[in-house]
Amino acid sequence: MHIIFFICFLNIFITFIGSEPTCDEILPKELKQEIQSYQAIVDRIIKEVLSGGYQNKTYDELALFTDTFGSRIAGSDNLENAIDYTLKKLQNIGLENVHGEKVDVPHWVRGFESAELIQPRHQKLNMLSLGYSVGTPPEGITAEVVVFRSFEEMYVNAAYAKNKIVVFNEKYTTYGETVEYRSKSASYAAHYGALAVLIASVTPFSLDTPHTGMQSYMDNVTQIPAACITHADAHMLARMQKRKTKLVIKLIMSAQNLPNRVSRNVIADITGNQYPSNVVIVSGHIDSWDVGQGAMDDGGGAFISWNALGLLKKLGLRARRTIRSILWTSEEFGLIGAAAYFKSFDIKSINLIMESDLGTFKPLGFDFAGNLKSSCIAQEILKLFKSIDLTYFKKSSSNSVGSDIELWTRVGVPGISLKTLDEKYFWFHHTNADTMDVENPNELDLCTAVFAATSYVAADLSINFPQQINNTLVDIMRQKQKTPLAPPQ
Amino acid sequence: MHIIFFICFLNIFITFIGSEPTCDEILPKELKQEIQSYQAIVDRIIKEVLSGGYQNKTYDELALFTDTFGSRIAGSDNLENAIDYTLKKLQNIGLENVHGEKVDVPHWVRGFESAELIQPRHQKLNMLSLGYSVGTPPEGITAEVVVFRSFEEMYVNAAYAKNKIVVFNEKYTTYGETVEYRSKSASYAAHYGALAVLIASVTPFSLDTPHTGMQSYMDNVTQIPAACITHADAHMLARMQKRKTKLVIKLIMSAQNLPNRVSRNVIADITGNQYPSNVVIVSGHIDSWDVGQGAMDDGGGAFISWNALGLLKKLGLRARRTIRSILWTSEEFGLIGAAAYFKSFDIKSINLIMESDLGTFKPLGFDFAGNLKSSCIAQEILKLFKSIDLTYFKKSSSNSVGSDIELWTRVGVPGISLKTLDEKYFWFHHTNADTMDVENPNELDLCTAVFAATSYVAADLSINFPQQINNTLVDIMRQKQKTPLAPPQ
Repeated sequence: MHIIFFICFLNIFITFIGSEPTCDEILPKELKQEIQSYQAIVDRIIKEVLSGGYQNKTYDELALFTDTFGSRIAGSDNLENAIDYTLKKLQNIGLENVHGEKVDVPHWVRGFESAELIQPRHQKLNMLSLGYSVGTPPEGITAEVVVFRSFEEMYVNAAYAKNKIVVFNEKYTTYGETVEYRSKSASYAAHYGALAVLIASVTPFSLDTPHTGMQSYMDNVTQIPAACITHADAHMLARMQKRKTKLVIKLIMSAQNLPNRVSRNVIADITGNQYPSNVVIVSGHIDSWDVGQGAMDDGGGAFISWNALGLLKKLGLRARRTIRSILWTSEEFGLIGAAAYFKSFDIKSINLIMESDLGTFKPLGFDFAGNLKSSCIAQEILKLFKSIDLTYFKKSSSNSVGSDIELWTRVGVPGISLKTLDEKYFWFHHTNADTMDVENPNELDLCTAVFAATSYVAADLSINFPQQINNTLVDIMRQKQKTPLAPPQ
Repeated sequence: MHIIFFICFLNIFITFIGSEPTCDEILPKELKQEIQSYQAIVDRIIKEVLSGGYQNKTYDELALFTDTFGSRIAGSDNLENAIDYTLKKLQNIGLENVHGEKVDVPHWVRGFESAELIQPRHQKLNMLSLGYSVGTPPEGITAEVVVFRSFEEMYVNAAYAKNKIVVFNEKYTTYGETVEYRSKSASYAAHYGALAVLIASVTPFSLDTPHTGMQSYMDNVTQIPAACITHADAHMLARMQKRKTKLVIKLIMSAQNLPNRVSRNVIADITGNQYPSNVVIVSGHIDSWDVGQGAMDDGGGAFISWNALGLLKKLGLRARRTIRSILWTSEEFGLIGAAAYFKSFDIKSINLIMESDLGTFKPLGFDFAGNLKSSCIAQEILKLFKSIDLTYFKKSSSNSVGSDIELWTRVGVPGISLKTLDEKYFWFHHTNADTMDVENPNELDLCTAVFAATSYVAADLSINFPQQINNTLVDIMRQKQKTPLAPPQ
């Protein structure tokens, strides 16, 4: 009996000390009521996109933009022309503080590329070189192939990699896990003397679709050419190898890392009428890969970010704090634009930072980073979107959400990454299939409304979102971000 | 009151004369019992693929085949090498009457092809020329573009087609409806003076995927080049036109119709031990398009057709009638191999003809063509597959199922087209994505088992499937099928 009492007591004690206070306990009643008082404004914003003059506007603007400029890789004229166009557009709709902030960005060019199986038979292998990859000699690399399922399998059979084209036929689990193969295979395989590396594209589904993306060379390894092939071809090569068939591939890549160029983060504000130096940021990135048209990654995110301000402007809504739209440049080559802004702009003056870079499908809610109280405020704001079924809320345990904004959330700035019905996101990601066909006018409208209303409420509240800045981490991270970021030699 | 009585009587009368008798009324109890008595054999066949020596065999054979030969377009060495290999394989597993039956087939070659938007900006348009299409002059055709949503829109705006590259941005409804745009656009647009035609690929879903397929030139029109582009690009061109943007495309196609070549239908039997001249046919086509690897269209169908016989052979199951596997040649260019067999082989001796050419996904049941009594027999056979959830049964109202076998079902031969979970079939159809990635070992096993067991029961029953041959139609259709089929001039 004593033992049982003791266990019961222990349980109660653990429950007591282990449980976080609830949002009901944390948020003063008055604050909750204050947030609830924004319901009419939120409804007005939603009505404007669903049946008012802003209906279909984000889609139409994005279609015109992608149709006009196509893809917008860092370092390209396309990107800079698209930025000029956007700056003009933001000025025209009457936003404030519209300007580009210069950033040195990498200038990698794909050039001609081809991969062909030439033994046991001839077959073109659909492929895309990876960002920062070096090219092959002009005559290409023709070499025997070895296929590995994993890094582990390569380590165990390291001798087979020497002087070969290494193919990784890795299994897709999640993007976060599997992308390691795209980013590190070249360095790892080079370590064992491989001549080039071809990776199964990082996607759960493919229609003969190769996916590009960034890879990084580690120090002290030979920089070898790296590209993605399709799932189907990687599987075929693996089957052939299993049958002991000798495989030879001819790979030609004229990819090059050229000197850096100057690009710009695009910035536009609706200046706050009480605390203009305190800002709520809504953001997406304006650069894309050089395949497809960057309509999804991240045309949608960028366009809901500036249209959110356009919508507020149209409705005459000016908050107490400044609402800032930032369209980051050169996200795809390593968050280059965001890193420059992270170094240059006062972190403490950022009240809340928001991003959309995982698609602008039907909005579901927020992926949130920040401390408990700020999380409770965000959850209370989320309740204002009941009419359009926003219920998803997830607080990151590692203070890490989004891509560009992760720089801030990791050091303690409250952040929201827009969560949408993104099940197919990685089908289109970094491919020629990233076109306006992925986008839907109504879904874009809803995303615009969510960004507009959330940023407005956050910027207008009587209190700031509670920050918890880790200054040591800020210093470390600021030092880590080289500006200008040198392309690999 | 009199009126009401009369109406009631009329209703009863209509119901009486209008209603078909049920299968319970049609099938003698003894026949139902006879069919049910095959349950043990069907179960044995299913067990052999699910956990016996035949497990994964169809998949492994098909993977080896597609990896070895790749695509197999009519007229190609690839196809003839694949046929030689298959004939040898069928002999090796001990099938009987293994031989190829010669057929003259078209020899269309794709050659180099490219389409590029050159105004308002440069963008490569992913495309595939269509079968039987002529090419462009070597320097290509560079011309202004007009986009139509439908044939109707072209008729109303016919003057705009003259000297243009006509783009059809048709809406996908069903394959059967939408494929009209692929097969007829060139002739229709040429009638109005178009220089070439580009059609949105015939598919409900695309990842930048162009789809090829056959088109036909009508008599008395200029034969103009015809190709499919992607949905996304057709949509983009339509948006640009709507904005009054001038569109110019440069199209280069070196497609050519070369002189016919000789191919072969592949035939193999398990000869019947009582009525050897009466046959049950299981079939798929061995040719494919020249893109992808023809694993789904129709590698799967062809391979379950011969593995069905392999499986019966392995289990020592020989039926009263002959079970014949036929792998048709040159289906893709207009059922050429089937048409030759339709002319040469006695139609009355075909007891039942089966086909799989809509994918070998999870089997669901039968699409059936034939008279009521034969339909009842097929439904009774279907009940033998309860353990693997086969419940789908649909009797065609037009006696038309399948593609190659439609020649027979339309004149009254009972026919079964295997129905599988084919929701994504047209995503892969006629594209580079038609690879082994579409296929699944277990699903192929189940399809093989269904073909083996169904053909065995049908071939072994005490009675024939009741035919209802329309001899006039046979004569008309035999005359209509020219052999050799001349390529368009």
